[in-house]
Amino acid sequence: MGVNTEPDVLPEARVIAVAGLGLIGGSLARRLAECGRRVIAWNHRPAPYEQARAAGIECVDDVTDLARAVPDVLVLCTPLKAMPDVLAKLAPVLDSRTVLTDVGSVKGQVRDEVKAAGLNDLYVGAHPMAGNEFSGYAASDPSLYDDALWAVTFDECTSYDRLLVVIDMICEGVGDRIIAIDDDTHDQAAALISHMPHVVSTALANELAETPSRNIAQALAAGCWRDMTRVALTDPDRTRAMVEEDAANVAQLLHHMSDRLESMATLLESGDDEALAQVRDFFAVARPYREYKARERGGAAHESVTVRIGGDEASWRDQLLASAKRGEHIMHMTDRTHAIAEIRTALV
Amino acid sequence: MGVNTEPDVLPEARVIAVAGLGLIGGSLARRLAECGRRVIAWNHRPAPYEQARAAGIECVDDVTDLARAVPDVLVLCTPLKAMPDVLAKLAPVLDSRTVLTDVGSVKGQVRDEVKAAGLNDLYVGAHPMAGNEFSGYAASDPSLYDDALWAVTFDECTSYDRLLVVIDMICEGVGDRIIAIDDDTHDQAAALISHMPHVVSTALANELAETPSRNIAQALAAGCWRDMTRVALTDPDRTRAMVEEDAANVAQLLHHMSDRLESMATLLESGDDEALAQVRDFFAVARPYREYKARERGGAAHESVTVRIGGDEASWRDQLLASAKRGEHIMHMTDRTHAIAEIRTALV
Repeated sequence: MGVNTEPDVLPEARVIAVAGLGLIGGSLARRLAECGRRVIAWNHRPAPYEQARAAGIECVDDVTDLARAVPDVLVLCTPLKAMPDVLAKLAPVLDSRTVLTDVGSVKGQVRDEVKAAGLNDLYVGAHPMAGNEFSGYAASDPSLYDDALWAVTFDECTSYDRLLVVIDMICEGVGDRIIAIDDDTHDQAAALISHMPHVVSTALANELAETPSRNIAQALAAGCWRDMTRVALTDPDRTRAMVEEDAANVAQLLHHMSDRLESMATLLESGDDEALAQVRDFFAVARPYREYKARERGGAAHESVTVRIGGDEASWRDQLLASAKRGEHIMHMTDRTHAIAEIRTALV
Repeated sequence: MGVNTEPDVLPEARVIAVAGLGLIGGSLARRLAECGRRVIAWNHRPAPYEQARAAGIECVDDVTDLARAVPDVLVLCTPLKAMPDVLAKLAPVLDSRTVLTDVGSVKGQVRDEVKAAGLNDLYVGAHPMAGNEFSGYAASDPSLYDDALWAVTFDECTSYDRLLVVIDMICEGVGDRIIAIDDDTHDQAAALISHMPHVVSTALANELAETPSRNIAQALAAGCWRDMTRVALTDPDRTRAMVEEDAANVAQLLHHMSDRLESMATLLESGDDEALAQVRDFFAVARPYREYKARERGGAAHESVTVRIGGDEASWRDQLLASAKRGEHIMHMTDRTHAIAEIRTALV
């Protein structure tokens, strides 16, 4: 089993259980089966089982059957709201040789639910940057995971061996790359690049909806407005749930954004030389981001580096977090304490 | 000439002068020439003249030559910053039989410069919703104007006959549609759907650039972040100029946005039942906008209506503005006091 390897041998995820055959879970199960891993799956309705079996996936009737098979990894791919119920069923039967992980987009909340079920010692968080606008097994597609990045998350109790099992599943089993960070760092980053901007986009749409000349404004709208309000058009209930699950981080970033916009309003109203110099500064702050995006568009090659992780209890968390902050994405573990990474993002 | 027609005959724009053969001016000149109007053009450098002449456009050496030809319409397609200089040269030679118009994206500032040159009696503002990310005559393309909407703007001094000449140029000469509104309404709408969102997009990019874990955040970024920050990647000096030209309107809308985001932050931090009900309300405000966009995606047919404009001095401004607010786009004038319009946008 994955977590019972020899000290110098990398633990592997040979048998993988997938709970939930929706878009993300179904695509993952198919990808892992395609790549030669043994996959056992359960879904809350057996509707996708015939297709899944044809794709080489073993299907079981009850979620507890997944635990009873003592897989190396059990991946929770159920909706966040189903998590407490599934965890309560798994807790009495999950073997400590199994690593528990998930694919949820908010890590702090999943961690709290895993803790409430008494399973935190077995758990490593995971979040693949994969998906599309569809849902359900019928929409599943292994190529969703082509060259995808996963965030793998830990807390102060996480076992390094269990982390290595999840990394093996992702890097060797799926063929993807990872960054390994703590839950808070993940959820703050997700709030910045997705949850908070969803609120901003909705606020823009609200401003239009409440403007008396809204039909005139909409008539003049072009690409800028279309892009800035696209995510406001997605299911508002799903957006609201996502924002509420990461409420503290979103709130903090909304304060920042509110301050930034209010400052610009004041500067534009003043309009004196000092204010205009500060307006100029406002437009200069994002220069490193523009330069990074220009390099990316230019197809800059990814530099390959060896990351020393240490692997001792005192330092692996710090070393993995520092690697992620440098913009390195881990492609493979070469041994228990070294990884090959590519520098994919590097904002100075 | 355009403004000297019989009372019951619609004035026409048969001879059109274009000052500035960049992307917008060059494409317009080519489109008008293709559609059989006589086009005379000037550019600050004669580089595009050979190609323009091959496209049937007469080219002149000096901007004053455009005025001396006494065209029905003279369209200023020069950059906003060149406007005062061009207007100063035109003022002594522009014949009162010529209607002066432009294609600038901010109407209040152009109006002020036209007034400063003493030419407001001759002027009608115009702003085509056309363009792309390129510039210069080499990038010009008459199809930029395919099915485009123009905002035509007036103030309390505008002549209805001159407005009709500009409408003839756009609806019959170019084959486009118009809304006719006052300058302030235009600039407030442009601030809402473009200028203010450019500031918001830049503020998002600034937030990323100033976040210590920016490489991690960028690594997790997907479609939402890409769309919300796309316009922050465009030339920041051009964006800054655009924002400063419409500073008062942008500032007002930034206050609104700042308040909306601050309110949401407070509600998310509170998290009690009343706060969560208000969060739900926040996501419901834009429902009419979502419903309108869903109808638009569904390919809803455009309803055709006859707009009665009156044409008397007391009411044509109010009637045109009310028509625009109802979401009607004027396709043709049928006589001096009636137009055929299509309802293209209709947010309740």
